[in-house]
Amino acid sequence: MAHILSLAEQAKAASRHTAVLSEGQINAALEEMARSLTESADGIISDNLKDLEFAKSVGIKTSMLDRLMLDKPRIDGMANGIRKVAALPSPLGGGTVSRRPNGLIIERVRVPLGLVGVIYESRPNVTSDVAALCLKTGNACLLRGGKEALNSNRAIVRALRAALTKSGIPEDAVSFVDDTARETANEMMKLHGTIDLLIPRGGAALIKAVVENSNVPVIETGAGNCHLYAHSDCEPDMAVSIIKNAKCSRPSVCNAAETLLVHRDTAGKLLPMVKAALDNVELRGCAETAAIIDVVPATAEDWETEYNDFILAVKIVGTIDEAVEHINKYSTNHSEGIITRDLNAARYFTARVDSAAVYVNASTRFTDGEEFGLGAEIGISTAKLHARGPMGLEALTCDKYIVTGDGHIR
Amino acid sequence: MAHILSLAEQAKAASRHTAVLSEGQINAALEEMARSLTESADGIISDNLKDLEFAKSVGIKTSMLDRLMLDKPRIDGMANGIRKVAALPSPLGGGTVSRRPNGLIIERVRVPLGLVGVIYESRPNVTSDVAALCLKTGNACLLRGGKEALNSNRAIVRALRAALTKSGIPEDAVSFVDDTARETANEMMKLHGTIDLLIPRGGAALIKAVVENSNVPVIETGAGNCHLYAHSDCEPDMAVSIIKNAKCSRPSVCNAAETLLVHRDTAGKLLPMVKAALDNVELRGCAETAAIIDVVPATAEDWETEYNDFILAVKIVGTIDEAVEHINKYSTNHSEGIITRDLNAARYFTARVDSAAVYVNASTRFTDGEEFGLGAEIGISTAKLHARGPMGLEALTCDKYIVTGDGHIR
Repeated sequence: MAHILSLAEQAKAASRHTAVLSEGQINAALEEMARSLTESADGIISDNLKDLEFAKSVGIKTSMLDRLMLDKPRIDGMANGIRKVAALPSPLGGGTVSRRPNGLIIERVRVPLGLVGVIYESRPNVTSDVAALCLKTGNACLLRGGKEALNSNRAIVRALRAALTKSGIPEDAVSFVDDTARETANEMMKLHGTIDLLIPRGGAALIKAVVENSNVPVIETGAGNCHLYAHSDCEPDMAVSIIKNAKCSRPSVCNAAETLLVHRDTAGKLLPMVKAALDNVELRGCAETAAIIDVVPATAEDWETEYNDFILAVKIVGTIDEAVEHINKYSTNHSEGIITRDLNAARYFTARVDSAAVYVNASTRFTDGEEFGLGAEIGISTAKLHARGPMGLEALTCDKYIVTGDGHIR
Repeated sequence: MAHILSLAEQAKAASRHTAVLSEGQINAALEEMARSLTESADGIISDNLKDLEFAKSVGIKTSMLDRLMLDKPRIDGMANGIRKVAALPSPLGGGTVSRRPNGLIIERVRVPLGLVGVIYESRPNVTSDVAALCLKTGNACLLRGGKEALNSNRAIVRALRAALTKSGIPEDAVSFVDDTARETANEMMKLHGTIDLLIPRGGAALIKAVVENSNVPVIETGAGNCHLYAHSDCEPDMAVSIIKNAKCSRPSVCNAAETLLVHRDTAGKLLPMVKAALDNVELRGCAETAAIIDVVPATAEDWETEYNDFILAVKIVGTIDEAVEHINKYSTNHSEGIITRDLNAARYFTARVDSAAVYVNASTRFTDGEEFGLGAEIGISTAKLHARGPMGLEALTCDKYIVTGDGHIR
């Protein structure tokens, strides 16, 4: 796979150029990228047709086909996504400065990371989103999408690279692994020193493979075994409303709830209400739950499963501590919530639950870059280092110290 | 190695307690740890003697013996180090809060990481330093030192744990791997989800092994193939002074310079001055250097070697770009410097050299937590993610979002 190494090295070389672009140059190039996408729409759509035909030939289900499909409005949407990124304030160049007692001036400034690798399985719009977020932050990117979208991704990247060339920026600033063999992903994971950050976006298996095999720093995104805990004093109508929203408003996404923990003192009242309100959801309950409502018996595996479907695990707990312990044991550290009227219970829960976002009386569905006011996100980090929760532009930058003296020695 | 897993799980459980201690409780426990060290000095010294005797028996050189040796003043120094950490402002609990248009209140707060693992080869004082820095930031730690200091480290940890117990804090908050077999380090590297951050402190081989094998997030510290570049217009006396300081003031440390790049236009004047001033340093030069001064011929290997000794590689370059490229190719991204009178050259160099600390007219030896005003450091990160350069207390914390609503659904 010398090919991937040389691809990455070319992209890294391009990152030396993007790192010193002005904000104006970057925004102009982003505008060019958006225009190029729209202008290339016909070609992208015809390449997308190849992916759709292949997908149909292997019997992919309709909901997946819809995710894959590109048409003029969707391509316009991608172009507008790039323009939205261009309009965000740049995180680059800011920082702090201090003068030390010896007169040294120490600037701590925000700079691009360098080369960002992204391995993804998602819809083709991820290709333009990631390219835009990386260029906005002065980074080059090396994109490796899934085989189901190979033709579409290739066409999108071609349009983006043409725009870079037109803008006087090395086209390798948006680089693409045009080979979806497993080895190409594996090789990317071994490019410590060339790739500065590797982001897997996809299912649990992909994320696990990257975490286990990468010598490049990784930020895990999107694994969401999210919990809601209904405390003994919760307001039942509010609890049901939040539970229903967190489970049903979009079950396929990472911030949807997967397990409901209910305090024993409210279970008798709350669980029948949950059962009635979530009538299209399969409930898998512990033995104590089964004594109150009709559920599928839960097994140990249910506590650790991210269903991404209309299924909810339900467990009765005796104390808030039991809820916290269950969550810290099984959660993927994405988003969890407590429903309570008790300020102390809320403080206790939020201080102890070890997740990126901890909610009080709100749906876990809010964990999202737009909802958090970050403007755009490259993913939702369930890691603790560098970036946690929705990753905005800042997550694609790092610190650098610039130290100026006039002959200072130590 | 089930033993290491259970040790780590106990330490992780302790981290749930340390995470919710108040700053007052933490500082009181640190004071207790300092007192306990001083009171246990006799026992520590007698255990340290065992390490010294073993070291002598295997013929370790005198300078290493001195690094290993503990006496009452040095133990008092360790205790005072802990008191200094206690006196630092806590990075915990600070943060920002915003009210979203829908009324959700989003707090972004600083919290402990959880369990910090450190694999180190250094002097026994690292044991108490790391334990103090971790507790100060609400973390538990799992310490795995080198075999040369096993008896000393064990005795230090015993004293620290006694202080924790006395302070009502689980003693496992400072946990110790009492087994220096290679497997114990390897096992620590596989504890993703239990250990939250793994820091290797030691030689290049240790750091490489951890980067290659760890599924736990790693911050590399201390690899320092540092460069100085003397630009065409540099003031020769200043250049010589900085070069001498960066090379000779303490060659064994990571921020010492290892390669000198000299612009061709000043080489004829500067190099003889360097040769004269660094008369105790072995110079290994490129062919062009050898035509000006008497040097050992440099090989390709010299450009990538961190000597940690009185040896300096010397290379003549024709342009500032050549210097930047050489540095970005061979450096470990620790600390590099330019010596110049030209503001544009300084701006050009600092914007393009991709290292944690980039100097203008100052010695690379300043890359240090104390010198940068951080108060204390747990290491100098050559990674880009999460922490870069000297790692102060903040590097041992992470963000967490606490989101409060009153029944908000999306």
